Parts: sequence; structure tokens; C-alpha cells
Amino acid sequence: MLKLYYAPGTCALASHITLEEAGADYATERLNFKANQQNSPEYLEINPKGRVPSLATDSGILTETPAMLAYIAQTFPKAKLAPLDDPFAFAQVQSFNSYLCSTVHVAHAHKMRGARWATEESSFADMKRMVPKTVGACFALIERKMLRGPWVMGDSYTICDPYLFTIAQWLEGDSVDINATPKVADHFKRMADRPAVGKVMDAEKA
Amino acid sequence: MLKLYYAPGTCALASHITLEEAGADYATERLNFKANQQNSPEYLEINPKGRVPSLATDSGILTETPAMLAYIAQTFPKAKLAPLDDPFAFAQVQSFNSYLCSTVHVAHAHKMRGARWATEESSFADMKRMVPKTVGACFALIERKMLRGPWVMGDSYTICDPYLFTIAQWLEGDSVDINATPKVADHFKRMADRPAVGKVMDAEKA
Repeated sequence: MLKLYYAPGTCALASHITLEEAGADYATERLNFKANQQNSPEYLEINPKGRVPSLATDSGILTETPAMLAYIAQTFPKAKLAPLDDPFAFAQVQSFNSYLCSTVHVAHAHKMRGARWATEESSFADMKRMVPKTVGACFALIERKMLRGPWVMGDSYTICDPYLFTIAQWLEGDSVDINATPKVADHFKRMADRPAVGKVMDAEKA
Repeated sequence: MLKLYYAPGTCALASHITLEEAGADYATERLNFKANQQNSPEYLEINPKGRVPSLATDSGILTETPAMLAYIAQTFPKAKLAPLDDPFAFAQVQSFNSYLCSTVHVAHAHKMRGARWATEESSFADMKRMVPKTVGACFALIERKMLRGPWVMGDSYTICDPYLFTIAQWLEGDSVDINATPKVADHFKRMADRPAVGKVMDAEKA
């Protein structure tokens, strides 16, 4: 049995949607970030990084979204969530997810998480001011060079799609106009219409 | 035929070592970062992100180190560079590499690449001051919770090892004492002794 540790509004949404799309039998545990539950001794035993998501499996615990998404795709092959039999196509999927994780999410994190990398209020304000530009540039590149349409990898829905949708959720708060990137905007609507996405969004809001 | 685009001193070293360990037939092209060659029109055609590494393959171009490392492992299965037949073990490999990419490399990048996320000199100085602490904390966590020894994943050498070695190269410049993390220090020496690593280090210095 799989168990996903998540908090609403975080990148854990990508794994949550993917578990649902995979038809997995899974449980969830919501962490209270306002109470700093992600840094509680109990949770640090599960994930010593003090972050979400974490995925408890029968074999042990996994962390890091790109790794978890590929794991779900590999362990639920019938759901066809990644091109598992084509190493190059699989690498393209992984490349896209790695870019979201290490560049786009990181750009976004400079809005509220500046204390990860600096100590002065003036630095936090400076970082925050730059977020619309940096996140906007990432999405412009996604629009121009990466998102094939209708899904990220073209005709096939993959583990790239819930991850892009998850990070696109943050655009409004980052003062980036999603309509400046029409393919991303179309993708966002298309994702929101999927039954699995609706179900997970409702569960995270409940 | 594979072709790796790299620059010395960058994370491209991980893919370079992995190609060598895989016994791949590959060529390399060195970019001159001082001349900003990574942002030349010719290179932006290859990698619109203006970064290294990039790997040209017969199927197309790949970017992002974690994706490239898994691709090399999958396309050279005889080299046994990842547990390809065990999705959980493979996910652990990917999780480690994702952490290096999205957290450790990012922490390091705040020393010299502050202009990615801020505009003020005072912010750059603030970020730079924090690098020994943030990178040091990442390596303390690697030592305590991730590096099994002798290799990252235990007895088997995997694509995690050249990537850890690559980022550990930066510790001295980041004012982090590698000897504060004895398992990492031992791993670093063990990596340096591998013939493939020596060959690649010589080639990048030549």
C-alpha cells in the first residue's frame, strides 16, 4: 500500500494526481505546514529533508518529485504514464521534469523561501521582485521549446503533465499571466477537466 | 554516435565520467564559458537554456543531468550503472540525483550565480556568505542519511557516484571542509582512483 505525505499548495500535487491517474491503491496524509509539521521529529524520520512530498511504499520511502513520478509510471505500466520502452523518449520526459524541479520550482521558491539562501530582509525583497521575471522566462521557454501540445510530450499524456499543471497553479501568485503563454493556458484548462485532477483537487481542498 | 557538450568545472563532469564508465563511443565539445559560448546562437539551437551539459544522440538532444545519467545507464545496460530491473531501487538512484540537482547544486549556485535570482550587489554578497552553511548542511545530510558506502547506493557503483563526486569537487571553493563528512571524503578518494575518472579529468584539463 502506498501512502503519500503532502501539503496543499505544494508540488506534492503532481504525485497526488499521478497516483490517481495510475489507478493506484493509496492513502494520503496531509501535513500542516502552518504548524511546521514537516519539521516535526516524526516526519523527519520519514523525510529528513523536512519537505513534501514523500511516498511510503512496501519497499521503503521515496522523496523528490521526478523520482516519485517515474516510479509510479514504472510500477503502474498499464496506465501508460511514460514511454517506458523507449529510453530516449523516457529521458525527454525526465529532462522536462528535472527542469521543472531544479529551475522552475527553484525560481518560484525565491518568492517565499528566500531564507533558504540568504539572511537579509533586503535580499528577500530583491528576490521576490525578480520572481515574475524569472518564472515568466521559464514559462516562455516551456511555451516556445518544450510543450508540444496538447500534452507536454505531444499526443500522449505523461507524468510531465500533472507536474506542469502543479507549477502552473503558482503563476497567478507569482504575478505571471498564464495567457501570455497560450499553449500553457490551454494545457492548464485541459488538465483541470480531467476527472482524476478534479478528484484530487477536491481532496486537497477538503 | 553520442556527443557531449561540456565546460570544465561544471556539472557536465558527471555525464562525462558516466559515458566513459559505460564504455560509450562518444565525442566531446568544450564550450568556452569565458567567451559566453553557451549563449551563442549556435549553442542555443542545441540547448535553448544556454547551459551545459547537453548530449546529442542519434534520436535528438538531451539536457538535464539526472535525465542524461539515467539515459546512459539504460542504453548501456551491460555497464550496470543503475538497478534497471528494480523500480524502487532505480527510484532511489533518481531521488539522490534529483536532490543533487535541485537542492545541492542550487545551493552552490548562489555563490557565483546570484544574478539568476536577484539584482542587487548586497543580495549577491548575502547569498555568497550563506553558501558554506547551506552546502555544508546538504553534505551533512548526505553523510548522515544518504551515502551508504562504499558507493552511494552501497556495494554497487551507480550513476549517483560520478554526480556526487562532481559536486564534491566544489566543496573547497565553497569553504566546506570535506573532512567534516568522512564518508564523503572517502568516496571522493575512491572515485578519483577510478581509471575512467582519471581519464576524463585529464581530458577536461587538457
